[in-house]
Amino acid sequence: MKTAILLSSCPDAKGVVARVTGFLHTYGANLVHADHHADLAEKTSFLRLEWELEGFSLDAESFKAAFSPIATSMGMDWSLRFSSDRPKIGILVSKQDHCLVDLLHRFSISELPGGVAFVAGNHRDAKPLVDHYGIPWIDLPAKAGDDQAKALSESAVLEKASETGVELFVLARYMQVLSGRFLSQSRAPVINIHHSFLPAFKGGRPYHQAWERGVKIVGATAHYVTEDLDEGPIIGQDVVRISHRDTVDDIVRKGRDLEKMVLSRAVRLHLSHRVIRHRNRTIVFE
Amino acid sequence: MKTAILLSSCPDAKGVVARVTGFLHTYGANLVHADHHADLAEKTSFLRLEWELEGFSLDAESFKAAFSPIATSMGMDWSLRFSSDRPKIGILVSKQDHCLVDLLHRFSISELPGGVAFVAGNHRDAKPLVDHYGIPWIDLPAKAGDDQAKALSESAVLEKASETGVELFVLARYMQVLSGRFLSQSRAPVINIHHSFLPAFKGGRPYHQAWERGVKIVGATAHYVTEDLDEGPIIGQDVVRISHRDTVDDIVRKGRDLEKMVLSRAVRLHLSHRVIRHRNRTIVFE
Amino acid sequence: MKTAILLSSCPDAKGVVARVTGFLHTYGANLVHADHHADLAEKTSFLRLEWELEGFSLDAESFKAAFSPIATSMGMDWSLRFSSDRPKIGILVSKQDHCLVDLLHRFSISELPGGVAFVAGNHRDAKPLVDHYGIPWIDLPAKAGDDQAKALSESAVLEKASETGVELFVLARYMQVLSGRFLSQSRAPVINIHHSFLPAFKGGRPYHQAWERGVKIVGATAHYVTEDLDEGPIIGQDVVRISHRDTVDDIVRKGRDLEKMVLSRAVRLHLSHRVIRHRNRTIVFE
Amino acid sequence: MKTAILLSSCPDAKGVVARVTGFLHTYGANLVHADHHADLAEKTSFLRLEWELEGFSLDAESFKAAFSPIATSMGMDWSLRFSSDRPKIGILVSKQDHCLVDLLHRFSISELPGGVAFVAGNHRDAKPLVDHYGIPWIDLPAKAGDDQAKALSESAVLEKASETGVELFVLARYMQVLSGRFLSQSRAPVINIHHSFLPAFKGGRPYHQAWERGVKIVGATAHYVTEDLDEGPIIGQDVVRISHRDTVDDIVRKGRDLEKMVLSRAVRLHLSHRVIRHRNRTIVFE
Repeated sequence: MKTAILLSSCPDAKGVVARVTGFLHTYGANLVHADHHADLAEKTSFLRLEWELEGFSLDAESFKAAFSPIATSMGMDWSLRFSSDRPKIGILVSKQDHCLVDLLHRFSISELPGGVAFVAGNHRDAKPLVDHYGIPWIDLPAKAGDDQAKALSESAVLEKASETGVELFVLARYMQVLSGRFLSQSRAPVINIHHSFLPAFKGGRPYHQAWERGVKIVGATAHYVTEDLDEGPIIGQDVVRISHRDTVDDIVRKGRDLEKMVLSRAVRLHLSHRVIRHRNRTIVFE
Repeated sequence: MKTAILLSSCPDAKGVVARVTGFLHTYGANLVHADHHADLAEKTSFLRLEWELEGFSLDAESFKAAFSPIATSMGMDWSLRFSSDRPKIGILVSKQDHCLVDLLHRFSISELPGGVAFVAGNHRDAKPLVDHYGIPWIDLPAKAGDDQAKALSESAVLEKASETGVELFVLARYMQVLSGRFLSQSRAPVINIHHSFLPAFKGGRPYHQAWERGVKIVGATAHYVTEDLDEGPIIGQDVVRISHRDTVDDIVRKGRDLEKMVLSRAVRLHLSHRVIRHRNRTIVFE
Repeated sequence: MKTAILLSSCPDAKGVVARVTGFLHTYGANLVHADHHADLAEKTSFLRLEWELEGFSLDAESFKAAFSPIATSMGMDWSLRFSSDRPKIGILVSKQDHCLVDLLHRFSISELPGGVAFVAGNHRDAKPLVDHYGIPWIDLPAKAGDDQAKALSESAVLEKASETGVELFVLARYMQVLSGRFLSQSRAPVINIHHSFLPAFKGGRPYHQAWERGVKIVGATAHYVTEDLDEGPIIGQDVVRISHRDTVDDIVRKGRDLEKMVLSRAVRLHLSHRVIRHRNRTIVFE
Repeated sequence: MKTAILLSSCPDAKGVVARVTGFLHTYGANLVHADHHADLAEKTSFLRLEWELEGFSLDAESFKAAFSPIATSMGMDWSLRFSSDRPKIGILVSKQDHCLVDLLHRFSISELPGGVAFVAGNHRDAKPLVDHYGIPWIDLPAKAGDDQAKALSESAVLEKASETGVELFVLARYMQVLSGRFLSQSRAPVINIHHSFLPAFKGGRPYHQAWERGVKIVGATAHYVTEDLDEGPIIGQDVVRISHRDTVDDIVRKGRDLEKMVLSRAVRLHLSHRVIRHRNRTIVFE
């Protein structure tokens, strides 16, 4: 079944759902899912509607023409996607490859809707597997403390992304901080996996911090990257129990599984058009 | 904020959401939550709409008059509740009182919306606490294998329920099987907690069965009671890990926490008008 | 089955387990559980041994006489308990009573091994239930910002604790910070429940902080109280998922269940002699 | 740090731990972990001891000579492994490759201690990835209902296993039932992943069964294979929540993650010599 998905937010007002679903009904839409959330504190309405394309009389172009006046009158931000879309993704990676291995397999069996345009890394460990999947690899010169190498790396990524039409960047344990310049020029969201239960243990070596503090649970957090390190809107989190028996190495091992799961779930939610960013928070229509 | 809640199901057709939300908009409803689920296999649409009463121009009576024609034209089953409703609940209990203690506290702090009309038990262990909360207690003669005592017990419960206007029965570890007569005459749903992860370990002594089988996780299941024992529609489930170290007594102890949680959650979901039964399954709008 | 439990820690050395189990064997002990943990980083050995009293030829007094020389030669800290011990507990509470209700029920059905010597509160909301269980109640004048009232409250608690032989204090959502004076004079450990996944959201109103940050999971933490607020050794933690739908009130509601579970588990682990504090961490032999 | 690991079970008797740790101490062992479990119902003692090899004066051969008389006198079953052992594993696979992909990566980064001797499959989908890792591949003719093809397949696997010294077989979603002949001739344990929370939904298409029954949680189970299908001793289980929104395809997708996690954990526990089979249950020293 092919579907269209509308994701929108607007100032809370009476009749938002009625007007939008009424509009869709006019053109023959058969709704499959409707999710609505009114944030009363923020006085904002969020809406995700998914309907069958069969029997629906508008294509993307004519939808825009017909819907824009209504959306504008409600002050609505909106975007439309189709279940058949296969957005291009650019993945950045460093030495550890577990998240990358996991993502590549999920894309390869079409569990994740989209295609990997390239993988860029500042270590070559993962290159043979990327080659195995027939995906272009970009060597990045980035290393800690070298601003020029960082600038060169980011330019290479931006150029390739522009060339291939990348709509999402995924940092699959990429251990370099992206510059503000990259974030402002990339024009595509960036999803990162942080290996702690944010806001606990921000910054470096969070599993070591967790061991030091003697916590009984560790976590991982997938979030959109903003200029404030480790402060971007959180898409998903998960946790795992640890005990006094777990050394830092054990925590790192358990954490790898968390990171893979949390990152791939966040990528899936984003690509299935289920996440709305609103200020520093997310609405996730699961 | 006072709200009204519409819960409905109808054969899947174009325009269900548009028509219902359009109807509500006509009378000034400001939607707070809208949940819609189309079961494509069953060709059925399920809908939960919640809106502010302030500014809404229909009361329960006039809502019925205005909405019934629309609902009928769509073949819709529906019910309307108000967030201010305080439905009456009848609780049945046997010897173990942990679920009862838990429910009584939750009602006492208004975490659960409603009031306990009575507690009926075939053991008196819990009576002092029920007295403490000022709730009527009914002694039940029911005991295993005594059909006459069962009939007397059920009649006593039905009479008291009818007298107090009970809208929901909760079996808080009530260890007697209710008769088909009770279920057909009660005219209110019955929620039970079964101390296993159904459909595993149906029937008696499920924790012993779990220990015997050597499972590493045990569960609890809240479900609506039907004439098929342990086969009614499942509202919620949860699990807890066990290990070779856990004796049957340990499993029973861990199970108590599960049972309390799972039962009270199911009661809350039901009372906040979030559960639709459809054949042998449930739609739970959380 | 009656058992004795030895809990010990000592500098790591060869033969610790052999020497202690050899000693016990000499006097006829039949081991039920043996747990040993060597922290290689800290070069410390932790040991928990539990054995049947039947056939064991030493009582507490003669055990001490016979074991002390061995323990001293290994630089060992140790303590001995019997499964039949029923330690006295003092509970402190403020307005919210869910943790208290939960603890009282668990003690009443002997799920927790021990007896509640008294409940002390700076609000009287919980008094009727405490009366119901026949447990002494102490009114505390403590309120925020009144040092004299705090001093009076703490003295009242210490006096009653000394009089009744309290071996553990439990802060069941007691919202006043205990003074260093109390902690140094109490001579019994104090377990607190903090309503966040420490070290995230230390300090006041952690659920509000969690909502503000937009996290997808919230937690609760049981820890021993030290003079460093929210920094004491963690005994246990647990978490629950939240979503954009959850208001602060919803998070508070979900948090209550977490707090009850996490606190009662920590109290049970402590009372069953399963927790060793070592610097700012705990070894928990589950 | 190199260690030796002793895993043993024997009839419960006084002094088991003392005698074994005393023996090890005699030869200079420094214990790192000691786990002991007495199953009082079964009157059996289970023991796992791990000690540093540095300073220990026995090698495998002389350990056997010195320890056997003691073990025999206690009626003890025992086995000794070294942390440096790298046992050979044979993996069987059918069409779905997610468990295989996961295992191969874990072995490749040495998260799992051992080496993959070969992968045998009755579909060729996974062959290119197996080639990428440089691991031998065996084509199996096995297909449903063809006894001769099954016999040929099993013989091919047994022959290769014997040739390479395989100590463990892993069924990574291998969809053919192994014959009794294979199990009796293989002389190495076989670990299988079943895609349900056993004992619920035995047999075929468990995710479909789960959807039909309307459960709110699905699971996966790793177990040793015996001649009784889906009845072997359970090593580990895990679960994931589902809702009315999840189609069978969604459940299958969520299940894949479960299966990977549960299977790889069971393989790790087995390979780190942490699992004892006892009748139809397992003792898992985590």
